[in-house]
Amino acid sequence: MYLEHIDSPADVKKLHGSELESLCAELRSALIEELSVRGGHVGPNLGMVEATTALHYVFDSPKDKIVYDVSHQSYAHKMLTGRKAAFTDSAKYGSVTGFSNPKESEHDFFTIGHTSTSVSLASGLAKARDLKNERYNVIAVIGDGSLSGGEAFEGLDYAAENGTNLIVVVNDNEMSIAENHGGLYANLRLLRDTNGAAACNFFKAMGFEYIYVRDGNDVHALIGAFRAVKDCTRPVVVHIHTVKGKGFAPAEADKETWHYGAPFDKNTGMPKRIAQANGSAVREKDYAALTAEYLLAEMKKDPTVAAITSGTPTVIGFTEEKRRAAGKQFIDVGIAEEHAVALAAGIAKNGGKAVYGVYGTFIQRAYDQLSQDLCIDRNPATVLVFWASVWGMNDVTHLGLFDIALMGSIPNLIYLAPVSEEEYFAMLRWSMRQTEHPVAIRVPAGPVVSTGIEDTTDYSVLNAYQVTRAGETVAILALGSMYGTGEKTAELLAQRGIHATLINPKFITGLDTTLLESLKKEHSVTVTIEDGVKEGGFGEKIASFYGASGMKVLNYGVAKSFPDRYDPAELLKENRMMPAQIAEDVLNVLQ
Amino acid sequence: MYLEHIDSPADVKKLHGSELESLCAELRSALIEELSVRGGHVGPNLGMVEATTALHYVFDSPKDKIVYDVSHQSYAHKMLTGRKAAFTDSAKYGSVTGFSNPKESEHDFFTIGHTSTSVSLASGLAKARDLKNERYNVIAVIGDGSLSGGEAFEGLDYAAENGTNLIVVVNDNEMSIAENHGGLYANLRLLRDTNGAAACNFFKAMGFEYIYVRDGNDVHALIGAFRAVKDCTRPVVVHIHTVKGKGFAPAEADKETWHYGAPFDKNTGMPKRIAQANGSAVREKDYAALTAEYLLAEMKKDPTVAAITSGTPTVIGFTEEKRRAAGKQFIDVGIAEEHAVALAAGIAKNGGKAVYGVYGTFIQRAYDQLSQDLCIDRNPATVLVFWASVWGMNDVTHLGLFDIALMGSIPNLIYLAPVSEEEYFAMLRWSMRQTEHPVAIRVPAGPVVSTGIEDTTDYSVLNAYQVTRAGETVAILALGSMYGTGEKTAELLAQRGIHATLINPKFITGLDTTLLESLKKEHSVTVTIEDGVKEGGFGEKIASFYGASGMKVLNYGVAKSFPDRYDPAELLKENRMMPAQIAEDVLNVLQ
Repeated sequence: MYLEHIDSPADVKKLHGSELESLCAELRSALIEELSVRGGHVGPNLGMVEATTALHYVFDSPKDKIVYDVSHQSYAHKMLTGRKAAFTDSAKYGSVTGFSNPKESEHDFFTIGHTSTSVSLASGLAKARDLKNERYNVIAVIGDGSLSGGEAFEGLDYAAENGTNLIVVVNDNEMSIAENHGGLYANLRLLRDTNGAAACNFFKAMGFEYIYVRDGNDVHALIGAFRAVKDCTRPVVVHIHTVKGKGFAPAEADKETWHYGAPFDKNTGMPKRIAQANGSAVREKDYAALTAEYLLAEMKKDPTVAAITSGTPTVIGFTEEKRRAAGKQFIDVGIAEEHAVALAAGIAKNGGKAVYGVYGTFIQRAYDQLSQDLCIDRNPATVLVFWASVWGMNDVTHLGLFDIALMGSIPNLIYLAPVSEEEYFAMLRWSMRQTEHPVAIRVPAGPVVSTGIEDTTDYSVLNAYQVTRAGETVAILALGSMYGTGEKTAELLAQRGIHATLINPKFITGLDTTLLESLKKEHSVTVTIEDGVKEGGFGEKIASFYGASGMKVLNYGVAKSFPDRYDPAELLKENRMMPAQIAEDVLNVLQ
Repeated sequence: MYLEHIDSPADVKKLHGSELESLCAELRSALIEELSVRGGHVGPNLGMVEATTALHYVFDSPKDKIVYDVSHQSYAHKMLTGRKAAFTDSAKYGSVTGFSNPKESEHDFFTIGHTSTSVSLASGLAKARDLKNERYNVIAVIGDGSLSGGEAFEGLDYAAENGTNLIVVVNDNEMSIAENHGGLYANLRLLRDTNGAAACNFFKAMGFEYIYVRDGNDVHALIGAFRAVKDCTRPVVVHIHTVKGKGFAPAEADKETWHYGAPFDKNTGMPKRIAQANGSAVREKDYAALTAEYLLAEMKKDPTVAAITSGTPTVIGFTEEKRRAAGKQFIDVGIAEEHAVALAAGIAKNGGKAVYGVYGTFIQRAYDQLSQDLCIDRNPATVLVFWASVWGMNDVTHLGLFDIALMGSIPNLIYLAPVSEEEYFAMLRWSMRQTEHPVAIRVPAGPVVSTGIEDTTDYSVLNAYQVTRAGETVAILALGSMYGTGEKTAELLAQRGIHATLINPKFITGLDTTLLESLKKEHSVTVTIEDGVKEGGFGEKIASFYGASGMKVLNYGVAKSFPDRYDPAELLKENRMMPAQIAEDVLNVLQ
């Protein structure tokens, strides 16, 4: 056992020859054990064991600085930098985050979760090093899947010109979350096929020196390569060919499913329970699967229907099988949210029916494209925003809380918040048939809610809120997935003799001024509840509308912050968003 | 005279041999005449005369679809597609916009003003074409300067894989607005030097076919090249080497100054009046120049100070001379806003003092980087946001109205709104010396306002608004460049016997809850005035704060919209933002 003696990278350097291979085997075994219990990014981490070991063998972290892109492949790095207990001691499982984190260790420089940022961030570290006239290595580790993001390209373009030491390790496992997409990947294949010798070389064209490591899971070959580039004075790419899921047969065999997995049986690979919202293969009926089924049916009727993903096809329900069924009508642009929005705009402009499905946390990448490419010209594409909710991903880097504030200020955009399955598909149907507006739909988070009643609303009548229960004194505007909270609040108030009006606003981006005006007559308090940050959100617009009137307004949403690995119920409680809390506040205001 | 007979591209096709050269000469002459009177994008348009003529000679617009990146080089295109009067008839100057515009012509497909979008948009047109099983050419015209933007890379990566007809004309004039930056440009140089023959070829590495045109101002050579790629069934890059400012000696000699120019004497090139806010060389003392002077002085004292621009160095005052003076401490990353923010974050993380200067309209590109790369870890870099104002650029594609809504919802970010020169530099000084917060400063628009009084505020006391005039009944929170409007409103109210409290909030991103609470005692109306869209802005947060109280709140800002080539005074009036209108509203509420 070598791992038990590794408390810092210095201990890695004491090993020799086959001891390093043994350490790698132990790291891999510990990873499989921990991942089988807790779930996590299986494939990315297993493939990077040898490269991580070799990096810490050759370089001197934290003086030499390693930045991991996405950092979902940094578990071995964590194990070698003083945090192994989180992976080897089941009592301490979960004591570290799933991403790099400067609060955890001096070996981590950034909290990273979105892709394609490592080269830019590392080149910032390198630039400061140069300005301070210091000498050490800065290393960016980036997966091939992350290379398609524009920020990565911008970073490479800059780093090459900057011209000083920067080592970019390109971890090429021939996969993104799903298969890779983009013209660039043909060049990576050419480089693999020629053992790095092809004259037409993307990285050289960008201005980098370049070396290739054919077996990126051979720790000794990697050590040789890293030694060759250590202390280089020019930017260099080390292109390493690794196997995603290396050393765990089910993960090697089905790389997409095993990118991220729920807890599993480490002998068979079978999941221990139904996975949620993470791209795993096994799941109950959910909005993703329903969406894919709906779109596939539409595709059969209309050859101009095109569904788009930016590297996360299952967020919109398109499993490998459904992608095959959709053929050319399903487009995976790779990790490239900016392009995805502009592509949708272009398709819509030329008469196609484009539907882009994206996680709420990643639509942040495309504000300018939503505004400029989609909305200035009102190109009638549809954006489906998934998991924008307190019940979405809860890592600080993957929060789905900011989309309303972000998209709410974009002119011409119609952003809709359905409450039920029926409403969602009525909205989607309308959006795909109309040609006047760019439309986004905030797909409800959590389990599918069905009313069993067809939604016959004409959504071309913009900004028409729905009064679902007429009452008096108090009006509750409960948006999208907060509708249930609004209902419960109304019930609690009813128990106290207050028969509140309950409203399903449906339209995030516009005010139903007629309805709001009419509420003034028999209501003295209006409550808004939304599933995201309060600042810049839906409710503040209602408060502003009523600002000059006597109407009192209580806005509920999550206070602007970066909560990390939070418990949704706790977060709601802290923000007084539980029905009992809201009812209590209303009663206080009425007194 | 040939131009007088050109009413559509069909008329271009009737010309032969030297007639085409004559047409080009006439186009160029008309452009110089019109630009000398009205100003505009001189260099980009002069360089593209022959290529535009050749495109319309070879292709069949609008069936074949040409998308111009940034579209500030589309004037010749406008002249050849039925809009020549706007350039040849001085009575009709200004009758078309400065960018492509589908409302003007069926030959324009998108309203484009931000860079790096053309390939993505064009590939959307092409994808819809393919889905509809139609046959024609889709052409994206992109300048070398725009290639560094991540969206362009994402577009190229997609288009190459999509694999059907898409012709990307790379207009390589060896310039961005200023000189080009990035490792990619070395490859363009290599391709120029080898007449396109170098084996290491960025475009081929991305999966494109490729041809090179050595003289991109030779209309016959261009016609030959475009004929060779017309109806191609694979994506192809036509790399054309043009001369920016071609045919106008001053513009050829000083390409940066002549990228965009105010009206000038067409014989001497001397400007007719002082240019404003557009990167021209001659200007009065302004915040840009003051900023560059301040930063240069700081750089001399501290080698870790680094100023960053993304392709628009003069927005932050760094003329060519000042860039030389700053040396390695000035960084132009090329058009790459995402990278610029991440780079700043990395520099700050490693102990450098990074200051990124950017137009308000372009910071939209980097929301995710502001949030993820800068703010999650509180990396203490400074972002200077210029021309975010109704008095900024007024083309629909270049509005500076959305930054408050955009940045206001990002946790940890301290966004400041100075009123005067003294406040601005006190804030900048503080920001560069502190190490706790990412800070953005909304640099005042318009002429420099000096109080002559040193600002000794301690900005580390966050969210402390400044009461500049204590009064009663009415409180006016006048943010940044709207402070003057607040002052005038207070004066008007004073004439009616109401002595309002006047407040300079300074902090856009946080509430001074103590002060706001205290205002309740002797005030019944609070007014907010901000220089940007109202939706999601500063004022709505104040309305929300007071929602449950008896305080009445009037929010003033620009209603969410995309105004185009507006008159600032008119826009303010439409939004009731003139002092007299605000005072009138206040008096109405008080009655």
